[in-house]
Amino acid sequence: MIQLDLIGIGTGNPDHLTLAAVRAINGAEVILLPDKGADKVGLIDLRRTICATVLTRAVPIVEFAMPLRDGAGDYAAAVDAWHHAIARVWQATLAQALPQGGRAALLVWGDPALYDSSLRIAARLMGQGAALAVQVVPGITSIAALTAAHAIPLNPLAGPVMITTGRLLRAHGWPAGADHLVVMLDAGGAFAALDPAGITIWWGAYLGMAHQALEHGPLAAVAPRILARRAALRAQHGWIMDIYLLKRETGDASW
Amino acid sequence: MIQLDLIGIGTGNPDHLTLAAVRAINGAEVILLPDKGADKVGLIDLRRTICATVLTRAVPIVEFAMPLRDGAGDYAAAVDAWHHAIARVWQATLAQALPQGGRAALLVWGDPALYDSSLRIAARLMGQGAALAVQVVPGITSIAALTAAHAIPLNPLAGPVMITTGRLLRAHGWPAGADHLVVMLDAGGAFAALDPAGITIWWGAYLGMAHQALEHGPLAAVAPRILARRAALRAQHGWIMDIYLLKRETGDASW
Repeated sequence: MIQLDLIGIGTGNPDHLTLAAVRAINGAEVILLPDKGADKVGLIDLRRTICATVLTRAVPIVEFAMPLRDGAGDYAAAVDAWHHAIARVWQATLAQALPQGGRAALLVWGDPALYDSSLRIAARLMGQGAALAVQVVPGITSIAALTAAHAIPLNPLAGPVMITTGRLLRAHGWPAGADHLVVMLDAGGAFAALDPAGITIWWGAYLGMAHQALEHGPLAAVAPRILARRAALRAQHGWIMDIYLLKRETGDASW
Repeated sequence: MIQLDLIGIGTGNPDHLTLAAVRAINGAEVILLPDKGADKVGLIDLRRTICATVLTRAVPIVEFAMPLRDGAGDYAAAVDAWHHAIARVWQATLAQALPQGGRAALLVWGDPALYDSSLRIAARLMGQGAALAVQVVPGITSIAALTAAHAIPLNPLAGPVMITTGRLLRAHGWPAGADHLVVMLDAGGAFAALDPAGITIWWGAYLGMAHQALEHGPLAAVAPRILARRAALRAQHGWIMDIYLLKRETGDASW
């Protein structure tokens, strides 16, 4: 039996780790680090730094090559094939690292429940009969890191907030039901699909880190600056993770 | 000038604190603990325990009586009056504790951005000219604690999720735009206002703590058990904080 701890690590700053995460990392018999390729080397470096910062004992670290999602063709089919490929890599890596079973830790960006595939991949393996038990250590979400950096509330007073993806925003525009909208997984500029009138944006990248980048203001005024800055930062660092909160004016003064 | 750190502390387990939160608590010149009255004595005890667990130096702790919100009359007017009263208490407490200015820490349940009034109260004071600077330390949300306890994803695969309140669910039913719905601030049983057909619930109280309580299953089958258990736990502990995720079936197999 393998116990797999999915450990939320926040958005890259070791200070985002909780005491529970530090304990789980130190309690593992092996730590698995996904390697997402040469163009995202900064990401695995961050995870290596986090381990080096919080480990108080020698825990073997195993890096595995993360399969890439096929960007072409049907989205759902591509995701399914991608999850299948990741599940196979996990299984092989765990079998090699813990042939007698034991406790493995996987460091997950943000929180494992929010737009991350690890829980689904673990469920897939367990559904195929793998002797696997999963424990989740909650982490600081990029949403909490964004609102903390701007020192703003997420929700309107006593009101709802929607979390969606850049893909959905681009395809369907502003969704019904909420005037506060968090957009994640935007490959860049999905907000440009919106009529910017009455919309304010709070944007952030590399949240909580030394090179954190923030912008906020009326969408019409700030959008070009965000797009230019995002492209420059991505070129500079080799990768970017960003997120934004949009607020739509509806006449009430609830914020 | 007073620097006020609003520190997210998660849902009551000291292990939810981040390394940044531990540092901010230890870096304060005074820690403010809201006292919500005799019937919620367990809540201030938890904050005292958290301070005792993570403090590595002697920081004065000042407890202040938290004004109560008037439950009758217009909701928005009652909230406004309540925020006004809290702002006055903060101001008096800070003036007494830090007459020359300095750094104060306020421990906030969950994350300060999510259904918490601290940021709005700080903004109110700053709007009135108070010499106050606010810094937010993000915390583990009760949402992340809920999904971690159940080891489930929050969002459907590549899909949206809505966060709303018990009050809104009761008043307006299931909102448009999302099939995954997080309900917070429910004084109890707002889900009973829904037709339970096709709805699954994941419920949790005292998340992350030794007496954590979890239930999940089809809403029709589980709702009576949750209501009974919630009432019993509340009577036993004197307070309860709970939250739930609802998932509505729409025919797609996205989870």
